[in-house]
Amino acid sequence: MIFSSKLIEDAVQEFSRLPGIGKKTALRMVLQLLKMEKGEVDAFTGAVSRMRHDVKFCKECHNVADSDVCVICVNPGRNRRQVCIVENIRDVIAIESTQQYSGLYHVLGGILSPLDGIGPEQLNISSLHKRVKEHEVTELIMALSPTIEGDTTVYYISRQVKDLPVSITTIARGISFGGELEYADEMTLAKSIAKRQPIENYVNMK
Amino acid sequence: MIFSSKLIEDAVQEFSRLPGIGKKTALRMVLQLLKMEKGEVDAFTGAVSRMRHDVKFCKECHNVADSDVCVICVNPGRNRRQVCIVENIRDVIAIESTQQYSGLYHVLGGILSPLDGIGPEQLNISSLHKRVKEHEVTELIMALSPTIEGDTTVYYISRQVKDLPVSITTIARGISFGGELEYADEMTLAKSIAKRQPIENYVNMK
Repeated sequence: MIFSSKLIEDAVQEFSRLPGIGKKTALRMVLQLLKMEKGEVDAFTGAVSRMRHDVKFCKECHNVADSDVCVICVNPGRNRRQVCIVENIRDVIAIESTQQYSGLYHVLGGILSPLDGIGPEQLNISSLHKRVKEHEVTELIMALSPTIEGDTTVYYISRQVKDLPVSITTIARGISFGGELEYADEMTLAKSIAKRQPIENYVNMK
Repeated sequence: MIFSSKLIEDAVQEFSRLPGIGKKTALRMVLQLLKMEKGEVDAFTGAVSRMRHDVKFCKECHNVADSDVCVICVNPGRNRRQVCIVENIRDVIAIESTQQYSGLYHVLGGILSPLDGIGPEQLNISSLHKRVKEHEVTELIMALSPTIEGDTTVYYISRQVKDLPVSITTIARGISFGGELEYADEMTLAKSIAKRQPIENYVNMK
């Protein structure tokens, strides 16, 4: 692409560094910003800049936060005995958006993957034992990917807390509500038959 | 979507105002920016801010420019007798990127569309007559959409300059190079047969 303005070119260049954004999409965004009022563009750049400079990570659960402790951890209405272990912030947003979970979280910041050089030191695992012990957590809900890395992480964490009286559960796997049987992968379908549930449970889940 | 950080939420909100960006895509971009170094994010917001505040519109051709006159209009190597009329900046970038056109441009900033309230006053048309006359332009190349609005604009402009010795041409329409006949729309296919070219022209076009 050949631009007749360095200012436009630079902005397109910056946008195209974002994931999934090619030059054409970047140009469309830049031209949209060019059409917007200066004040609106200042609001855009201001929000992005404040986000990067001021976001903190919760010292309890490692979730993103606007202060030292996140709004979930300070909320007295949440069940402090239940901690859901997730890989990243996006998982917290997904679970929060269901509005069905009232416990706390623990954001690992990744998943154990020796091949990629990600060991326990790279993740927020060491703080977990202390957290479970001090806050008398009774249940750790593992909400990690059903991959080898996810299973390894679940196993590692369960070993770390095996001296504590905490039960470990994982989220249910199976065919999605609304998912069609014929499009399910074989593994999911096979497991969903093997782990079939009494019909009463199904009614409760709905 | 439920966020546990207002800073993240605000940034996602701002991104999702851009065209074609939903909340999920906006979140992916924001989390990518959160992973980047602060300096890189400052470069991003700086480039966007400078683009919006400092970009000018060329007083000759109304293209985007970094100073009063754009780099195309000040380039002594361009053919000043030839002016290509386009709807917007994106069209200039597309034509420039072919590196096959050496004349100047005239960016209308839209297309005549009475139903949308866009008349000649909303477009950069009034400056065209003076430009053609003073710079002794010999050819106006119409590179507008082949729609009713495009045709209306072509007709209107040709009426505006009919007292001047300038020839008016339009870009060639037809089946794309590499385009398959069976997928072409009927209108294009019909016109491409009606406006068939001697084989020598075809060889020259390649």
